[in-house]
Parts: sequence; C-alpha cells; structure tokens
Amino acid sequence: MTPEEFRSVGHALVDWIAEYRSGIERLPVMSPVAPGAIRAQLPAQPPERGTPLDSIVVDLERIILPGITHWNHPGFFAYFPSNTSFASVLADLTAAGLGAQCMSWQTSPAATELEEVMMDWLRQMVGLSRQFTGVIQGFASTATLCALLCARERATNFSQDRGGLQAEEKRLVVYASEESHSSVWKAARLAGFGSDNLRLIPTDENHALIAKELETAMQVDDERGMRPCAVVATTGTTNSTALDPVADMAVLARLWGAWLHVDAALAGDAMILPECRWMWDGVEGADSIVLNPHKWLGTGSDLSAYFVRDTEQLIRTMSTNPAYLRTQHDAHVKNYRDWGLPLGRRFRALKLWFLLREQGVAELQARLRRDLQNAQWLKGVVDGAPDWQRTAPVHLQTLCIRHIPPGWTDGAELDAHNLRIAAAVNHRGRAFLTPSILKGKQIIRVSIGAETTERRHVEALWEELQAAARE
Amino acid sequence: MTPEEFRSVGHALVDWIAEYRSGIERLPVMSPVAPGAIRAQLPAQPPERGTPLDSIVVDLERIILPGITHWNHPGFFAYFPSNTSFASVLADLTAAGLGAQCMSWQTSPAATELEEVMMDWLRQMVGLSRQFTGVIQGFASTATLCALLCARERATNFSQDRGGLQAEEKRLVVYASEESHSSVWKAARLAGFGSDNLRLIPTDENHALIAKELETAMQVDDERGMRPCAVVATTGTTNSTALDPVADMAVLARLWGAWLHVDAALAGDAMILPECRWMWDGVEGADSIVLNPHKWLGTGSDLSAYFVRDTEQLIRTMSTNPAYLRTQHDAHVKNYRDWGLPLGRRFRALKLWFLLREQGVAELQARLRRDLQNAQWLKGVVDGAPDWQRTAPVHLQTLCIRHIPPGWTDGAELDAHNLRIAAAVNHRGRAFLTPSILKGKQIIRVSIGAETTERRHVEALWEELQAAARE
Repeated sequence: MTPEEFRSVGHALVDWIAEYRSGIERLPVMSPVAPGAIRAQLPAQPPERGTPLDSIVVDLERIILPGITHWNHPGFFAYFPSNTSFASVLADLTAAGLGAQCMSWQTSPAATELEEVMMDWLRQMVGLSRQFTGVIQGFASTATLCALLCARERATNFSQDRGGLQAEEKRLVVYASEESHSSVWKAARLAGFGSDNLRLIPTDENHALIAKELETAMQVDDERGMRPCAVVATTGTTNSTALDPVADMAVLARLWGAWLHVDAALAGDAMILPECRWMWDGVEGADSIVLNPHKWLGTGSDLSAYFVRDTEQLIRTMSTNPAYLRTQHDAHVKNYRDWGLPLGRRFRALKLWFLLREQGVAELQARLRRDLQNAQWLKGVVDGAPDWQRTAPVHLQTLCIRHIPPGWTDGAELDAHNLRIAAAVNHRGRAFLTPSILKGKQIIRVSIGAETTERRHVEALWEELQAAARE
Repeated sequence: MTPEEFRSVGHALVDWIAEYRSGIERLPVMSPVAPGAIRAQLPAQPPERGTPLDSIVVDLERIILPGITHWNHPGFFAYFPSNTSFASVLADLTAAGLGAQCMSWQTSPAATELEEVMMDWLRQMVGLSRQFTGVIQGFASTATLCALLCARERATNFSQDRGGLQAEEKRLVVYASEESHSSVWKAARLAGFGSDNLRLIPTDENHALIAKELETAMQVDDERGMRPCAVVATTGTTNSTALDPVADMAVLARLWGAWLHVDAALAGDAMILPECRWMWDGVEGADSIVLNPHKWLGTGSDLSAYFVRDTEQLIRTMSTNPAYLRTQHDAHVKNYRDWGLPLGRRFRALKLWFLLREQGVAELQARLRRDLQNAQWLKGVVDGAPDWQRTAPVHLQTLCIRHIPPGWTDGAELDAHNLRIAAAVNHRGRAFLTPSILKGKQIIRVSIGAETTERRHVEALWEELQAAARE
C-alpha cells in the first residue's frame, strides 16, 4: 500500500468510525447473530492475490458490524463498562503508525518515559502516595497473576531461582473473598498454588469479605503448618461492587507476612473522585494494586495500571537478561520487559496521554459523578417499586436487582423469571444486561458507565425492565 | 470530543503517519536521546482542564518522535523485525473504533469468528495439518508460558485442581537448548518449575540443540526419579536462527511422555514459503507451536499465533466459569477467554484480515523471499571479505558476524572492537544493529526483514560496517 492509498483508506475509516459512533444508538446493543453466521460469510482459504482495501468499509459494514456487541453504546449496561473514547482511538492509531516496541528503554525511549510520567499522573489522580510506582499491564487478570507470582517468590525467598514451587516444604495459601473475581482463582491455579490452597472467605450481607473469617482461616492454616502467602482484597467486586475491608486485611496480611494485593479493576477508576476514596481505606498497606483505566476512564483496552511498592521485587521476579537484550543504558533506565509477563510491549501510554490532555481530570471526574448519580437515581426508583428488590448496596455504578411478582418466593421459578426479563431486554436490542448469581439467587445486574450513557438511557432501561417484567 | 473533531484530528493523524512513514529514511534509526530527555518535557502533574487535540501532531513531532526508535525504518537490522504494515495500522484504528471486547463469543461474535477463520487461514499458509487449532496470544513469551503451564497440568493430571505444583511428589523437568530464548527460562520460572529443573542442553557448531545430549539428560533425570515434563524446540533461535532437530526431539518427547512446544516466533513466518518447511521438519509431533505474524509478516504487535493439538487440554488449564461470564451460547461457541492467560481481549484478528486481503499470500511470500535473498547476498560478501568471519549458518534473514583485523585473536579486545563497530554504526543513525554473544564470543548481529528494507539498504549497511571497522 502506498502512503497515498493509506491516506485515502485511512480518511474513509476515520469517517466510518465517526459515523458508526454517531449512529450507534440505532444499533442493537448485543449482537443478534447466530453462532457461525459471521464465519459463514468468510472464505475458507486465504487469498492468493491481494486487493486494494478500498472496499473494506463496505465489508466492515456488511460482515463485521452485525456481529459486534457495542460496548460504547448508551444502552450498554452489561459486565463493567469498557469505554474506548475518541481520544483513545486516535492514540491507538498513532501507536500503530509509529510501530514502536516498548520492551526496553532503548527500543523506544519515548514509550518508556511517557509511560513513567502517565503512571505517575494516574497515581496522583487516584490519591496514592509516592511509595507506589505504576506500570502498564495488559488486563487486571494478568496483573493479578503478576501479584500472586511476586507473592509466591517473596514468601519462598525466590524459589524460582532454585527448585521452584515444587521444592518448597511449606504449603503456601492464598486468600480472597468468595465474591472475588474468577481471575484471582485462575491466577492462584496458574501460579501453582492449587485450588486446595485457595481459601474463598465468606462474605457479609453486603457481599464484602468478613475480616474475622479471614483471621480464623489464616490462623488455622498456620497451626496446620501451612504458610499464609497472599491476601487479595477486592475494592468493587464484579458481581455487586462490594468493598472488602482493606484496612483490616492489611493488618492481617502484615501480621502473617503475606502479600496484600488490591483488585480495584473498576472501582480504582472512581478513586479520581476524592469522595470515593473511603472505599479503599487502608490501600496504602498494599503491596500491589490494580485498576483499569480501560474500563470506566476511557483509554480502551488493554491498559491496566499496576502499582507496586517494591519495584525491585517485581523486577527480580520478572527479569531476564540475555545478551541480545542488553543495552548500554540499562543501569540508568527502566526496561519494562522486566516489569510484567510478556517481553514485547506496545506503546500504550499514548492512550492515557491523549485522553488526559483532551479531557483533563475535571471532565473525567464530572463524567464519573454523572454515572454515580444515574445509579443513585435508579436505586431510588427500584427502592420505590414494590415488586422489585435490590440485593446489594449501590456504592458505585452497579445495581443488583430482582423482580419479585406479588406472592412469589425464592426458588428456581423466580430465578427463571428474572433470567427471562434480562433475556427479553437484551433481545429487544435497546439495552444489554448480563444477569448473574449473588448468594445463590439469580439477579439482574445493571452496570452504568458507558461514556455515552445519559440519564435518559437509564430511564429508558427502567421502562424496559418494567415492561419485560409485566410480559 | 465531537465526531466532527474526531474526523478532523483523525485525518490529520492519518496524514502525519503517511508523512512519517514516507520520510522515515531521513530519521536516525535508533533514537539518540539521553535518558530522561523525553520525561523532562512533560508536565509533572496531569492537566486539570482538557484542551482540544488540534495541537497533538505538533507535540508528537516535537516531544515523542525524537524518542522513537524506528522499527519500520529500512535501516532497522536490530532484534528481529517487527513490521507494522499500513494495513495493520488501519486495522488497529478500526479495532479501537469498534471498541469490541473479544473475551467471549457473545461480547462480539464477529471478533471470535474472524479469529477462528484467520487462524485457520494462517494454519494453511504455514502448512500445518488440521490437527492443529490456532488462537491469538499476545506475544511468543506469553504463548510459551501457556505451553509450559499446559505441560505442567498434563503431567500432573491437573494438579491445579488439587494441591498445585507444591503438592506434587515427583519433580518435573523442562528441557530447552542453551540458545533458547530467555522467555523460555522466564516461563519455566514463573510456572513454578524453578531454575534447578530447567535443563539447558548443549548445542552443536551450528548452535542447534544436540539430540543425543537431550536424550541423556532425560534419561538421567528419569533414573533420579524426576519426570521429564516439557521439551521446547526452537526453530530459529534469536541469536542466530539456529534450527533445533524438531523431529528427533518429538521422538524423545513422545518416549518420555513430555510436552513438545515449538518456539518458531520468527521462523514460523517463513513457513509460508514451502521451500523453508524442512526447517521445522517433525513439527506435526508438537503439542503446541508459536509463531509471530507481528514479526516478519507485518500485522503489528501484539499478534502471536499459538497452535495446539488438544484444545480441550488448553481450555481445561485456562478456563473459569463464573456466573457473570456465562451466556446462553456457551455450549456452541468458542470463548477465547478460556484459551490464554488474560480475560480481556482486543479485536486483533482484524489485523490479519486487513493484511491478508490487501497483500495476499503471494505478495507476502515475495517479500520474505526478497529478504532471504538479501541475507544470502550479505553472506556472500562477508564470506568474501578476509577480515570478516561468519559464526553461524544463514538459514533465514539473520547473520552473525565479527570483524577480525589481521593478526588479532579471540579475546576481550576483539570483543570490544566488535562492540565498538556496532556502536559506531548505530551512532551514525543510518542503521541499527543489536550485538550479541554467541558461544562466548561478541558478535555483530544483522537481522534483515523490515518491510521497507531493499537491497540498497543492505549494501549501505555493509559499507557502514566496513567503514566502522576501519576507524
């Protein structure tokens, strides 16, 4: 492709994206296609000869778009938000255009140094002290895996330099709440601890970890000759944004010499609001923290921010130093390949730079406050509706609700009724919800926070829910 | 940002990228900035108020560009190539514009199904049989970590579902050549095997693993009561593109019931050329294979292709199934969140789609053949120059060479002399080389394969090397 062709197709794609985003509200939020429908439209073999990309916009519109679930749609109330703001789209374009690798400082100094500065901006924005240093990881799931690997290595005085986990005499144990994210369980398994050595601690009526239960579990393990190795506190669980008692957990972690990792994947974004910081009170006692600007703030994935207290410990766990990667500046610079799992790294800091320059902290704060207010509005109407029940506090932007027709009681039938409501709303295409199970009960989960979601969209969702419940 | 502002800045950035790429040859390949120079130009605090991105092109040019090492420069002979073709830049733009998540089928069916088809196209292109199924991973390093985790779980009948690696009685051992990539060592450590249980097998005069040595090592470990768990064969080592004897290693792996992982990060791209496939003869005996289209083919990182024989085994190692991720289609579709380390996934298949449509297989083949011929040309002139020595065969596009002035012998002084030559070339800015150490000797490593590199650039490099050697 010549630079001229690139310009021409590039402009067409920019225009197509602008139109797609402008008209997104008219599309069904959740893709309605059947399994295999997209695959069936694609050739089974690769093309032998190339063709100009002139027609790519047509094929995107015809083949790809019907198979897209629109995460930037104002009716997106599923999972957690994953906003890719316009500024972030432009940053991804730029990063690809530069094609820079960010594995070592030398492989593109600007990528490393912009990441250093952006992570420090973010640290200030969420109110963390200077004892924390940030680095970009891919996703919260891989950041949590990093945390558990670092915990393992600290507890074993770097067993990976010797016989590995398999040579350790004392069993290491990991603790998290029963409402912690599945990536914590996955990380504990992948890091070699094994499911038997993962304690899922009971939660209280607000779905937060009960510190007393954690204390007992750690004590019992210690008495059995096992070693409490890592504690994962969740600030804002995925099901219900429950808030684990970080300060109490920090005390217990310190007492047993365990690593404290704080998973604030979504809620960490809200820490740019000083009035929310009580939610992770005690966070300064953490060894590591993860939060995802690619969720609520709008950088687009992948951009997880991983903050650690002891950078040397992280580097010692993750580093390798073969001859072909050494450079003359190694003693004076950061080589981020030694700060996480992968060797290769894209130039992701651009996304934060573009977003923060364009929006500024105040505008981001205003948008998050809008979403918190929309959640409180919905909470108000749900609480005022006799047939609806709320099953969790609304700390942030997520509601857990269920419809209980007069005379119905808990059970499989009520669960099926609520699943049907969510399915009916999703099927109509104006909103997309992901139901879940909380304390054994089927719930409808409403997660507010798409950049485009205004009050009227939340009002429309409430109408949809009521209509579906009546059907 | 309004859609209109997005259009305007988007067009400006597309134009800027087109101009950057057109004029790239005039820029110094390796960024010449001093540590801290970029950081010093950035504010220490985030902006409170946003500003339009109109001026972003100016700041990219002024602050960022001087700190970029240009991986798409025709004088890029460092590391391995990492081409981000124009088609891939446009795909990244599109992926960000759509902002789709590809963790589950439901979260964007088109992203999952395009990935299925693109991985099958790629499988056909590199000549792998239908017994292999592909999935996109981030980087070869994380794909190799997946492989060793799967090997661990197969060997222990899924110990992660019980007491983990720490509860296993038999020590598991991993084997790879002493020339294998550092990410293999890192993966063995992170997966909990420990350095003591990683055997780096000696290599022959061509820097390839010696099968007889591997056999002996596995036998000795078995006699000691240890269990050979995984064998990593490298097709195209990073230092010298050495070719491990995959077929022999497959026999040994099968004999001991060990997992065979083939690391063909760069060389796998060359398998689109039928005449290169002898290089990984025996690959059909592998349990897993990784190759990086983001290296030589031009998709831009991150796009590693990971092929496995037993998808169920991969899924069982990587899967979680919490209520908030379940969808009604789960029994009938692929949920790629269960095929790798991270939960979240970008829509990366677009990059292969755009690239293969635009270039076609034939054009990609022609470009790779051009690079192989350029490497053979350089081999010819090096071999004809009395003061220069070649220290490895030239199977692909990488040369390992050293300058030996008349009368000089091996030693620290000769090593320093060759390091100086590479530094002098890099300093002049027309080419960028990464020196390395091969069998204890300092070498100059020439890796050809940037999309823009033509014969004249290789000729110019040879002039530069000779000039630097004379100085």
